[in-house]
Amino acid sequence: MYRFIFLLALLLYTGQFFVSAQNHRYVNMVNPFVGTKNMGHTFPGAASPFGMVQLSPSTGYLSMYKGGEYNREVYRYCAGYQYSDSLIYGFAHTHFSGTGHSDLGDFLIMPTTGKVNLEPSEFRSVFNHSSEEAKPGYYRVNLNSYNIKAEHTATKRVGLHRYTFDEGDSANIILDMVYNIYNHKQKNVWTYIRVENDTLVTGYRQTNGWARNRTLYFAMSFSEPIKGYGHKKFKEVVYNGFWRKFDERENFPEMAGRDIRAYFSFDTDVSNQLLVKFALSAVSTEGAIRNMNAELHHWDFDSTVSSVQDEWERELSVIEADMMTISQMETFYTAMYHTMLSPVTYCDVDGKYRGLDQNIHIAEDFTNYTIFSLWDTYRALHPLYNLIKPYRNADMIKSMLAHYSQSVHKMLPIWSHYSNENWCMIGYHAVSVIADAIVSGNLKGVDTDKVLEACINTSNQRYFDGIGDYIDYGYVTADGNSSSVSKTLEYAYNDWCIAQIAKIAGRNELYIEYMKRAESYKNLYDSSIGFMRPRNNDGTWRTDFDPMDTHGQGFIEGNAWNYGLYVPQNIPHMVKMMGGKRRFEKHLDKLFTMQIDDRYIEHHEDITRDGIIGNYVHGNEPGHHIAYLYNYTGAAYKTQHRVRMIMDTMYSNGVDGLCGNDDAGQMSAWYIFSSLGFYPVAPGSGYYEIGSPLVKAATINLPNGNRLSIRVKNQAKDNVYVKRLFVDGKIHKGHRISYKRLLSASEIVFEMRD
Amino acid sequence: MYRFIFLLALLLYTGQFFVSAQNHRYVNMVNPFVGTKNMGHTFPGAASPFGMVQLSPSTGYLSMYKGGEYNREVYRYCAGYQYSDSLIYGFAHTHFSGTGHSDLGDFLIMPTTGKVNLEPSEFRSVFNHSSEEAKPGYYRVNLNSYNIKAEHTATKRVGLHRYTFDEGDSANIILDMVYNIYNHKQKNVWTYIRVENDTLVTGYRQTNGWARNRTLYFAMSFSEPIKGYGHKKFKEVVYNGFWRKFDERENFPEMAGRDIRAYFSFDTDVSNQLLVKFALSAVSTEGAIRNMNAELHHWDFDSTVSSVQDEWERELSVIEADMMTISQMETFYTAMYHTMLSPVTYCDVDGKYRGLDQNIHIAEDFTNYTIFSLWDTYRALHPLYNLIKPYRNADMIKSMLAHYSQSVHKMLPIWSHYSNENWCMIGYHAVSVIADAIVSGNLKGVDTDKVLEACINTSNQRYFDGIGDYIDYGYVTADGNSSSVSKTLEYAYNDWCIAQIAKIAGRNELYIEYMKRAESYKNLYDSSIGFMRPRNNDGTWRTDFDPMDTHGQGFIEGNAWNYGLYVPQNIPHMVKMMGGKRRFEKHLDKLFTMQIDDRYIEHHEDITRDGIIGNYVHGNEPGHHIAYLYNYTGAAYKTQHRVRMIMDTMYSNGVDGLCGNDDAGQMSAWYIFSSLGFYPVAPGSGYYEIGSPLVKAATINLPNGNRLSIRVKNQAKDNVYVKRLFVDGKIHKGHRISYKRLLSASEIVFEMRD
Repeated sequence: MYRFIFLLALLLYTGQFFVSAQNHRYVNMVNPFVGTKNMGHTFPGAASPFGMVQLSPSTGYLSMYKGGEYNREVYRYCAGYQYSDSLIYGFAHTHFSGTGHSDLGDFLIMPTTGKVNLEPSEFRSVFNHSSEEAKPGYYRVNLNSYNIKAEHTATKRVGLHRYTFDEGDSANIILDMVYNIYNHKQKNVWTYIRVENDTLVTGYRQTNGWARNRTLYFAMSFSEPIKGYGHKKFKEVVYNGFWRKFDERENFPEMAGRDIRAYFSFDTDVSNQLLVKFALSAVSTEGAIRNMNAELHHWDFDSTVSSVQDEWERELSVIEADMMTISQMETFYTAMYHTMLSPVTYCDVDGKYRGLDQNIHIAEDFTNYTIFSLWDTYRALHPLYNLIKPYRNADMIKSMLAHYSQSVHKMLPIWSHYSNENWCMIGYHAVSVIADAIVSGNLKGVDTDKVLEACINTSNQRYFDGIGDYIDYGYVTADGNSSSVSKTLEYAYNDWCIAQIAKIAGRNELYIEYMKRAESYKNLYDSSIGFMRPRNNDGTWRTDFDPMDTHGQGFIEGNAWNYGLYVPQNIPHMVKMMGGKRRFEKHLDKLFTMQIDDRYIEHHEDITRDGIIGNYVHGNEPGHHIAYLYNYTGAAYKTQHRVRMIMDTMYSNGVDGLCGNDDAGQMSAWYIFSSLGFYPVAPGSGYYEIGSPLVKAATINLPNGNRLSIRVKNQAKDNVYVKRLFVDGKIHKGHRISYKRLLSASEIVFEMRD
Repeated sequence: MYRFIFLLALLLYTGQFFVSAQNHRYVNMVNPFVGTKNMGHTFPGAASPFGMVQLSPSTGYLSMYKGGEYNREVYRYCAGYQYSDSLIYGFAHTHFSGTGHSDLGDFLIMPTTGKVNLEPSEFRSVFNHSSEEAKPGYYRVNLNSYNIKAEHTATKRVGLHRYTFDEGDSANIILDMVYNIYNHKQKNVWTYIRVENDTLVTGYRQTNGWARNRTLYFAMSFSEPIKGYGHKKFKEVVYNGFWRKFDERENFPEMAGRDIRAYFSFDTDVSNQLLVKFALSAVSTEGAIRNMNAELHHWDFDSTVSSVQDEWERELSVIEADMMTISQMETFYTAMYHTMLSPVTYCDVDGKYRGLDQNIHIAEDFTNYTIFSLWDTYRALHPLYNLIKPYRNADMIKSMLAHYSQSVHKMLPIWSHYSNENWCMIGYHAVSVIADAIVSGNLKGVDTDKVLEACINTSNQRYFDGIGDYIDYGYVTADGNSSSVSKTLEYAYNDWCIAQIAKIAGRNELYIEYMKRAESYKNLYDSSIGFMRPRNNDGTWRTDFDPMDTHGQGFIEGNAWNYGLYVPQNIPHMVKMMGGKRRFEKHLDKLFTMQIDDRYIEHHEDITRDGIIGNYVHGNEPGHHIAYLYNYTGAAYKTQHRVRMIMDTMYSNGVDGLCGNDDAGQMSAWYIFSSLGFYPVAPGSGYYEIGSPLVKAATINLPNGNRLSIRVKNQAKDNVYVKRLFVDGKIHKGHRISYKRLLSASEIVFEMRD
């Protein structure tokens, strides 16, 4: 009955779906445009689940500096695309999804016709959204300036382009090695293009962008032979060899330097289509060729789309959710989609990858991943993997441990990015991901003592970000460090995670030591004002303290009102410390309702009006657990109310459907958990806080074979309150449910009321 | 009897030798300072035979541009050292030996005491030659400004430093990553230093020097623990990570950027010596560590010197020569020494190396070499190897074939340098080296058809340096190309070499085709003026032609008078074409006696007064065969006279003992052959021209086990003429002797007269 109504609704909603099994596929509910307007920082282009190649249109061609000044516009282009734009400069092969910092944008390919012009302002094309289509693993747009139909798909390591030209047009492919995201003056360190034969081109680019030193290799294969080619250097480098031997500008098969744009021309007399395979490798051009041959040995575009979409379907259908509206369905499955665009696969098909030490390593028994935006993703994204994709999450942890073993700092990753450590944001949250997996029994075949050693060494690297002070004083000192309170609070939680690992490893002395460190938050609570507060190394509190201000007050991307509630490891004690349940509840009430002055928001890239409820900031991570804290005040209904409110107001299936950066999938993971009715407030605890489900029903296909069914009785827009909760038919008491219980339960029934 | 007199002479000469077997070692006759004054471009530092590490003092710290102008001084510092200097800036690990172009100078190490100052003008030290000693595999100097005794030795891939400080001094090691030879503005592309632990440091440097893009990795190990370290960036690069997390200037184990100088400080309270192992790899830091562990697993400096010198002794004693004077002995064995400083070993101990395609390859059944300055070295250096070290020469050819297989141009090396093709000078002389080896039967286990294919593809690469014109017109056209005559003449010889290979491969059609191409020299002989002359594509001769001028007259580093005699593949025909034996002899007479105007020499880096006899230029390669051409005029005695004259006047055992760049050993190889009484005028022919030996006697220990003895009767300074020549007791007729004959002969006796 449900299915019939659902399909009918689909039909009515879009007008373009046939009533067929084919269309009742989750891939068709994903809208990759969600978040592409404003600050979602997502991209609409083609990608495989966790694929390295993320082939997507570039609608801006910006430099970070404009007349010596930082160009504030660039932040909108972290993922290369803004929905409001009308020009496409080409299609680049790598992108961050939803991050709050930018990089990548490698290897921009632009098809043109007629005479080649290598200036972006000349080769870009007008486009409009009516010709644009985006689905998981498929993207299409018409390049109006040339009347070229551009279509893309991508396997994990290979992008496949199909360009359809007007009959009789001569076709060009521009390979722009200058284009960059995070494009400061001289981001390119070195570039190299090599025309191996009349259909194969290889090369690499080395950049000094956000990643300090990143080299990416490619192999590009054309479906038609190259008729002619050439390049132009946009920054000359010293090279003595060529000047008297060759004219290297045209049909000379080695093009090297810093800022280069190359073109390849083709006869399209016979065929009006040109296909391009573009494979990546962080190891070598040889590796890129190997990846290409292994993943795409044919030229069948449609069958590639089909098999990539089948892969997406398998990944998406791990959770079979039914929602109240099609819009919610699309929001939910787009969120699912966005949780699988990073981390990305970072090894060749033969397992080789470039390590943090710049040496080539082999991932023997795991897939190596990169792009760990851990300050964001430890909260809900990795816990989501731990629940529904624990084997993949274990591989990610193995990637983190490999990073550790290659780190001269003897530290687990903070923000790991293509063989670089970007050191972005605070804490050492890899330990949270590890603790969550170990506590859940999901980190098999890894020596716990070695894992523990990695965690402990990380937490004791004194020169990192105030850790020395933290160890010596019990808190990060305000006079020696910025964001001292945020760091102290996160280190304390991280240390509690290490304690959980130590406990499982049977290392009691370490457990005691780290449980003690986990109490460090207490050292920064100023009971006289009722807030966490920066403290100097002489024990005095910082004066001139404004708990509303997000700048220079000991917090980062937050303030004492919201970030000060960060004690996930011991919420009952935090509540008690802050005056007990009543006072704490009032603090939360005020947080969600207070008026926040504009001056606290302006000039803050990560906090926008869109993502704010009172002084609660959903568009940024430090508060993601806060709505669930009412569970500890005896007012769980307020958690339920706020959680549903956030889902209703902060997420949608529109292009502006994200209220802030998706943050590598964390925002989306929050939505998925909350939609299912629970959320991991303290990863590593083995427990989820119960909220208010948005789904009408959902089946989670757990990897142990258990099909966990969630049913929501009396689900309706206004029925946001959980009257009763049944697990396998028995009333479930308390505001939490354990990972272990989920693993074995067959059915969870939420009974809702208004 | 001889030996006694020899030792006595040694004793008298130096005053420092003991009469012992130990001192009658050839290593003690090598003077690495030969050629270090003025334009020899040799270096005095420590090296193993064909070693990658060539650890030598840097007495200049120059930039290629001075106030926007090319700094002419830099050419004197191709090998980093000038004997006339009194300051040492440090010791770098890689050097060209005797080349006419510069690069390298990687990883300058400077020991200092007291407070660290990272400015070269401050950290450099005064030195004088009285404290300096150089022997194969050993170099010593006192750094007077610090009173540090610096000593060096080197295995193939590892430099070993020993610094002895004054008691109680605190010691520093500066690692200067900014220092470069060929140091144009921003030669450094990227540098990276990583402090792995308190004795091990790794890193790499990527440069855009003469080699367009070269990356070299290192591992540096100290005999004492590092007390403190730090670095300074002399060019800032964008990097967002560190600024708020760390102070990276001191004791922070990752130092990265473009222009960096680092220091490492040590306590020398306990020991007043500090040893440093410095290993190189073109593959990775991992490779450098592996090389270090494999080649130098101990800290015994003296035993390392001893074993490296034993290796030199084995290499030098392949020819056991006796000369008339100690000075000649030193000149001879220094020449032998200089023939083994390049090419250099270019693979790790596990066979891995970085190919021309920048991918990592494994040299399965050979040692990979680099630094092929082929326009120089095909003449006598490779023929010398082919005679005395054919297995090594075969490995060099395998390295060239690997280069070919990795070349996008499908070309054998022209000037191969650390995974780069520098395209320096003209011709495709790898085919000469290959032909010489194949004709001699010294290229075993290599598929001749594949070798031939490499040669043919190379010779048909139309876009290279006028080859298209050469094929179409029968000569390189003057209106389309510079140095058109030189190129035509060398291509013609090269094509003759290919024909010889084709003949052995039984490919008659190719033999005929290439023998035809080998006649191309005829197309540029203008019989109306009796000179080779540039010719336009319409067949007309170039007007305004000055046969004396070395600039813009169709020749490179030569003129029509001398370079025009370049037809090694068919000297009899050249003689005939130029008017017959009498006229040709007169041409040669005039060449050796004419007065050459200063204007033809000035502003020419490769031709100096020192290297000139009339218009014969010995200091540069195009004329190296000319003295032997009298053999074809019936006036062989004039060859004998000129050859002895050149040996007497152009070579010595002094610091200015080379009359021009040693050119990667070619000048030295000329001397060795000529000293033995014969010279390979046409490599690939299987014949040597007979000259006038300088040795009194010599035994060549041929690799087939034959000990070929050369005895010179009536040898004396003025007895330069060969009265009779006996091979195995029989009179040898003609002016040539074949390689095959040398292989089997027991004794060659020259009977001299005045």
